[in-house]
Amino acid sequence: MNNQYKNAVSSKIKRIFSSTKGVERIIIANSNSMDPNFRYLTNFSSGLFEGSFLIASKGHLKLLTSNLEYDTAVMQVHDAIEVVKITGREQLIKELSSEVSGKAIGLNYSFIPYSIYSFIKKAAKPNTITDAYPALLLARLVKDEKEISYIRKAAAITKKAMASIEERFREGITEEELALEFDGLSASYGSSGPSFRTIVCFGQNAALPHHFPSKRRLGDKDEVLIDAGATVNGYCSDITRTFIERCRGSPKWERIKIMYDTVKEAQDSAIDKIKAGNTLSSPHIAAENMINSAEGGIFKGKFIHSLGHSVGIEVHDGGSLSPNSKGEMEENMIFTAEPGIYIKGFGGVRIEDDILITPKGGVKL
Amino acid sequence: MNNQYKNAVSSKIKRIFSSTKGVERIIIANSNSMDPNFRYLTNFSSGLFEGSFLIASKGHLKLLTSNLEYDTAVMQVHDAIEVVKITGREQLIKELSSEVSGKAIGLNYSFIPYSIYSFIKKAAKPNTITDAYPALLLARLVKDEKEISYIRKAAAITKKAMASIEERFREGITEEELALEFDGLSASYGSSGPSFRTIVCFGQNAALPHHFPSKRRLGDKDEVLIDAGATVNGYCSDITRTFIERCRGSPKWERIKIMYDTVKEAQDSAIDKIKAGNTLSSPHIAAENMINSAEGGIFKGKFIHSLGHSVGIEVHDGGSLSPNSKGEMEENMIFTAEPGIYIKGFGGVRIEDDILITPKGGVKL
Repeated sequence: MNNQYKNAVSSKIKRIFSSTKGVERIIIANSNSMDPNFRYLTNFSSGLFEGSFLIASKGHLKLLTSNLEYDTAVMQVHDAIEVVKITGREQLIKELSSEVSGKAIGLNYSFIPYSIYSFIKKAAKPNTITDAYPALLLARLVKDEKEISYIRKAAAITKKAMASIEERFREGITEEELALEFDGLSASYGSSGPSFRTIVCFGQNAALPHHFPSKRRLGDKDEVLIDAGATVNGYCSDITRTFIERCRGSPKWERIKIMYDTVKEAQDSAIDKIKAGNTLSSPHIAAENMINSAEGGIFKGKFIHSLGHSVGIEVHDGGSLSPNSKGEMEENMIFTAEPGIYIKGFGGVRIEDDILITPKGGVKL
Repeated sequence: MNNQYKNAVSSKIKRIFSSTKGVERIIIANSNSMDPNFRYLTNFSSGLFEGSFLIASKGHLKLLTSNLEYDTAVMQVHDAIEVVKITGREQLIKELSSEVSGKAIGLNYSFIPYSIYSFIKKAAKPNTITDAYPALLLARLVKDEKEISYIRKAAAITKKAMASIEERFREGITEEELALEFDGLSASYGSSGPSFRTIVCFGQNAALPHHFPSKRRLGDKDEVLIDAGATVNGYCSDITRTFIERCRGSPKWERIKIMYDTVKEAQDSAIDKIKAGNTLSSPHIAAENMINSAEGGIFKGKFIHSLGHSVGIEVHDGGSLSPNSKGEMEENMIFTAEPGIYIKGFGGVRIEDDILITPKGGVKL
């Protein structure tokens, strides 16, 4: 177990440093919240580690943390990480300097608050600082076997919960209540917690992609959109289903059925383009063309976000499948494919799955 | 309603700008996650607003956001915020520049990622940039009537859930399962969601202040520590109870009972010091002295964190009651008082309440 853990950490560090040039140390610095790369590298499942510093060098991780969480860290580190208890500012500066002073270091510019960046620069006196974000992103985009198995399991849990939530639909239940029931189902199937705040939209609220559950009550003929994810060993799933059967017999039925079928076809055509070696932009373009040209163009411009994003230790794990994405898909990347059509004041449809990229094509997890 | 909302926003902006010197604009910039000050100022209850910019000037808020969440924003803004839909990088730069170019601006150095700081500096060409964090912190420390009523309600919910959770204790339940049941109770009493990941510790795990619920099962004679909070209109509570009655009759009973009584006394003596005009450090010192001197010093050094922190729109809302805190308590600040004793391999006790500061003393919410 210890060795397995050590190997996993080593291989992640190796992947990160393989795309940094001349960088000797990478510091992952938590603020009030945790840099997701802290979890990626440590795989800790417990603790907040506010204000802690994780210093990565080739083949080694050193964690500087306070009295408050020292024991929580030690319990989880096995032998892959050295943990140093920090009791004051002076000692922190001394420890940072001894690792960093005069060296070429990388910091995650996309997360590190300006205050901590300035503190490291002044107090620890590195020779140069560059942005480690591209290297971290690249390392995290391609998943190893373990990571894939966790995400696969998380996706299975969410799909199982989606399959059993429909019987909980009842007139008068609020979006908040249904979201809570969904989270309960998901936990009972093995999720360690929602991978993000569960989105539940009834009727017209489905036109808002990032709507949070409200006190709106389910009407007799409302569609239900649920966008939710589970976590397994810290890894996320992210799946959306739109349940339109309730609308049958209502004035909105015909239009929403066409929307649903169009989104489904758009997702299929996007997944057809998901394959190692294809451009990252091709799946979005396929889905968008399908939506814009359907039914004589009545949905033109109603697909208002990117087709998908990478999932991993974070639900928005860094990369995206957008019309502007540069580069190619690689084996063992995992992206969502989530086309949608949103019509203000009417409603919306989104269908989302997590797709593993293989040389033969995209595989729904 | 619109006017009420507008007044609340205006008064928050006024409080912030009252402690900035010569600053003309404050930009709150979200990254992958939301700057809590974004929620503080907008009071939005729905949406993620990744990558959005909120520009505050005296008496005015302007939100720059994408197509994806434009409608979600407009639905919630009433007339206090101007919302601009951003469709590309060029337009974003143009909008930022028109607000900021040549001006003295403030940014939240404790949150803003270095990449966004650099982007604003280069693309929008402000004349000067200073740290807006101290002003934001100061404004948020003192709560208005509405904010107090939300936190009071959130605290009542959590206390009600704490009162009814004990009957759910049963041998063999896991920490994860109990946490989920707690969240369910809390939601059924009116919480919009946990204010942080609910902490449940059985037995020895209670020695770890930031332990996350695990698959550990409740034993016959384990104490149960629960640290949890609710949210009401986006405002948080944060309350801890340690249930030691289960230990009665076990070898650990005598010691844990003394720990419990000591922590309770420490909390009482801390709350005695909580009063507008007293120093921010005095409550911690009172509690720590009590713990260090109890029972001939057997718990000396076992209180390993600060007495408390400010609660508000964030559960860790900025300020703290620590031995190093400078300044004085003011009316309508709200802090946790949460002394604890942690003994590795044995267990732990923490008792936490949310205390409103009044001129007459501290009031448990």
